Amino acid sequence: MKQYGAEFLGTFWLVLGGCGSAVLAAAFPNVGIGLLGVSFAFGLTVLTMAFAIGHISGCHLNPAVSVGLCVAGRFPAAKLGPYIVAQVLGAIAAGGVLYVIASGNPAFDVSAGFASNGFAEHSPGGYSMVAALVTEVVMTMFFLLIILGATDKRAPAGFAPIAIGLGLTLIHLVSIPVTNTSVNPARSTGVAVFVGGWAISQLWLFWVAPIIGGAIGAVVYKAIGEESA
Amino acid sequence: MKQYGAEFLGTFWLVLGGCGSAVLAAAFPNVGIGLLGVSFAFGLTVLTMAFAIGHISGCHLNPAVSVGLCVAGRFPAAKLGPYIVAQVLGAIAAGGVLYVIASGNPAFDVSAGFASNGFAEHSPGGYSMVAALVTEVVMTMFFLLIILGATDKRAPAGFAPIAIGLGLTLIHLVSIPVTNTSVNPARSTGVAVFVGGWAISQLWLFWVAPIIGGAIGAVVYKAIGEESA
Amino acid sequence: MKQYGAEFLGTFWLVLGGCGSAVLAAAFPNVGIGLLGVSFAFGLTVLTMAFAIGHISGCHLNPAVSVGLCVAGRFPAAKLGPYIVAQVLGAIAAGGVLYVIASGNPAFDVSAGFASNGFAEHSPGGYSMVAALVTEVVMTMFFLLIILGATDKRAPAGFAPIAIGLGLTLIHLVSIPVTNTSVNPARSTGVAVFVGGWAISQLWLFWVAPIIGGAIGAVVYKAIGEESA
Amino acid sequence: MKQYGAEFLGTFWLVLGGCGSAVLAAAFPNVGIGLLGVSFAFGLTVLTMAFAIGHISGCHLNPAVSVGLCVAGRFPAAKLGPYIVAQVLGAIAAGGVLYVIASGNPAFDVSAGFASNGFAEHSPGGYSMVAALVTEVVMTMFFLLIILGATDKRAPAGFAPIAIGLGLTLIHLVSIPVTNTSVNPARSTGVAVFVGGWAISQLWLFWVAPIIGGAIGAVVYKAIGEESA
Repeated sequence: MKQYGAEFLGTFWLVLGGCGSAVLAAAFPNVGIGLLGVSFAFGLTVLTMAFAIGHISGCHLNPAVSVGLCVAGRFPAAKLGPYIVAQVLGAIAAGGVLYVIASGNPAFDVSAGFASNGFAEHSPGGYSMVAALVTEVVMTMFFLLIILGATDKRAPAGFAPIAIGLGLTLIHLVSIPVTNTSVNPARSTGVAVFVGGWAISQLWLFWVAPIIGGAIGAVVYKAIGEESA
Repeated sequence: MKQYGAEFLGTFWLVLGGCGSAVLAAAFPNVGIGLLGVSFAFGLTVLTMAFAIGHISGCHLNPAVSVGLCVAGRFPAAKLGPYIVAQVLGAIAAGGVLYVIASGNPAFDVSAGFASNGFAEHSPGGYSMVAALVTEVVMTMFFLLIILGATDKRAPAGFAPIAIGLGLTLIHLVSIPVTNTSVNPARSTGVAVFVGGWAISQLWLFWVAPIIGGAIGAVVYKAIGEESA
Repeated sequence: MKQYGAEFLGTFWLVLGGCGSAVLAAAFPNVGIGLLGVSFAFGLTVLTMAFAIGHISGCHLNPAVSVGLCVAGRFPAAKLGPYIVAQVLGAIAAGGVLYVIASGNPAFDVSAGFASNGFAEHSPGGYSMVAALVTEVVMTMFFLLIILGATDKRAPAGFAPIAIGLGLTLIHLVSIPVTNTSVNPARSTGVAVFVGGWAISQLWLFWVAPIIGGAIGAVVYKAIGEESA
Repeated sequence: MKQYGAEFLGTFWLVLGGCGSAVLAAAFPNVGIGLLGVSFAFGLTVLTMAFAIGHISGCHLNPAVSVGLCVAGRFPAAKLGPYIVAQVLGAIAAGGVLYVIASGNPAFDVSAGFASNGFAEHSPGGYSMVAALVTEVVMTMFFLLIILGATDKRAPAGFAPIAIGLGLTLIHLVSIPVTNTSVNPARSTGVAVFVGGWAISQLWLFWVAPIIGGAIGAVVYKAIGEESA
């Protein structure tokens, strides 16, 4: 049970920190943190939680990560269901708390997007569905490569939270304009349920593409990362 | 006595570095560091001091942290008083030095806020008192989760200053627009005393909410973080 | 073969992450990541891959690095050819994927530069060929000093990916205005082939200068870095 | 001799990277790195060199650091002279290379400041001489506290370059508007000699204040940092 509690809290933090920075601070007048600040915020949620709860649950915080680790043979399939449930519930709870905080500002309008992921007319930069699919698959694939490589026994011990957290920062630095960056179906769900409409009807892509990408990343790492002479 | 000296100096640095960056550099014309720069500054005060004085005093620099660690059973209640006194005195001394430096600029006006924390009409983005309370409680709760998790015996040794410092950066990336971000009653007090008026009359929230949040964080970490099979 | 696969993937990531951030996110309206974000993106590609595949291939991702390590006596000359081929192929493949993603935006125009390196009329800030040559030689020389020093047996173990990755960030913070920053012939080639014309005709400088700089860095480190009393 | 070569090269890198980012990239149109980028650049010069040459010379790169370490009893007075000479020569050589690069842009004008330090009418934000003095003394004092604390035997091993480098970033985040931030007489000298006039006549402050601050930092750390029960 403690593992599920940790995944709930960790994913809560990922959504509150990452989406919270986007909703509350990205476009603050004159001194807003911009997409660079949002990228750091997402990455630092994972960096901080990986140090804080990595020893409890492994700190996946992301169904695509749990699936990828399962494909790589590092996580038991039996726990996949409860992990994903805990992650999605944590994400939705964080979306709710963020909604409460944001509503404390009279100018808040959830229909402005609430940090939801989207493509085509709901892509921040107007990118097509194909571009969104390619981006989410490739980005999640490399996210899993980083996770599997940095936690490999041959990698330096203790540094994985830095590599993985800053890897998520990097992914956001590239891809926020395309899809607002998901690579994480729980994160997408946690805010989409408060927006409804288009955010829900486009949500399928942010489950399908990250999970496919995560699985590919696992297969690729097994191909290049197995012990060799 | 050395511990109290270290807490005094460390909290001095937190306020001079964090509030100093906000007062002197955030809105500098054209090339100002913005809220992103202020967020890094606050986080780096803690990162640097945790490496510099962690081995002397534990580097709390924050009454809410001292209370949280006490609730978690990691800090003796007998030292709570002197630690908090040292922290508040260090914060006020730093506020004074920052006041001297800022006054060297003819355009300086302490009534512009001097990096004080506030809510409602004194929230940077116009957020309500309820939003401020929720934000400060939740942010401090997660700050303590990060602190307790990253210093857990099972977490990788030596990395806690990075996790905790960048955790404070993350907290600022989200919440400066709401309350100017406290999560630290000493930091709030250190500048409010120079502003007076509204900054003093709103100061209660920045003692109450962080301390409640810190205590909740300690209880939650004990619930999910205890050794389990 | 696994090493070559790792170099292919790692260099793919360097170009997709670094050049991708420049093409997709640098100048995004109002909240774009700017040159600071691009600098972090390039550095984080190396930081993340050095943790992820350092134990497989050494994570060079750069012909100038492979040459420099060879000059320093840390990499066998026999592997130089296949490493460089893998790096260039990975870079071109990433350029292709980035082209596909960027083309999902109707406003995309590859002739705007596609993050290619250039000098004189193709320098972002209008810097001369001599300035470009000096910049690329000196920057790559220091990049190799950092790589050789941080992986020296006497340096603290495990931290080299942080030093080297953030070293590349620093190099970009200084030199994007001059040449768009190469210090890496594979990175330059990976996007130039999609731009053609001037990008190809100026490409020689971004092979010659980084390789000379890398070799000088190796010689200098041997001069100052050999064990002494 | 190798130590002096390392100090020469390291200080060269500090000035080329830090002042170079300020001169070439800070105010680049639309996507410039701003004071935040310059702050990271200065910090990363020290972070990277501390990993690269820390095991050769200790990586002071700064006369105020050498003096402070000497006062703290961690550096022999006999080496103070040659270290400072190597640092100043490295800084001036870097100023020269930066001058060559910057001159490759027809719009370059050294009299615009060339990243020199100044106060009163030459303070970036118009701060008085007293504000400049207080700022440089206090900032250098804390820089030495961070250096002495992070390299204390009781601090976690290997992390000092991160603490010290990001400490210098933090110092810049606060104080660029006041003095353009020195805390390092060699850095100030390395560019002032190319500007002449006011930059030379104000240079005394950037030797006196950092050295006093460094010495105070050493004394303070000895007071709070000595082994206690």
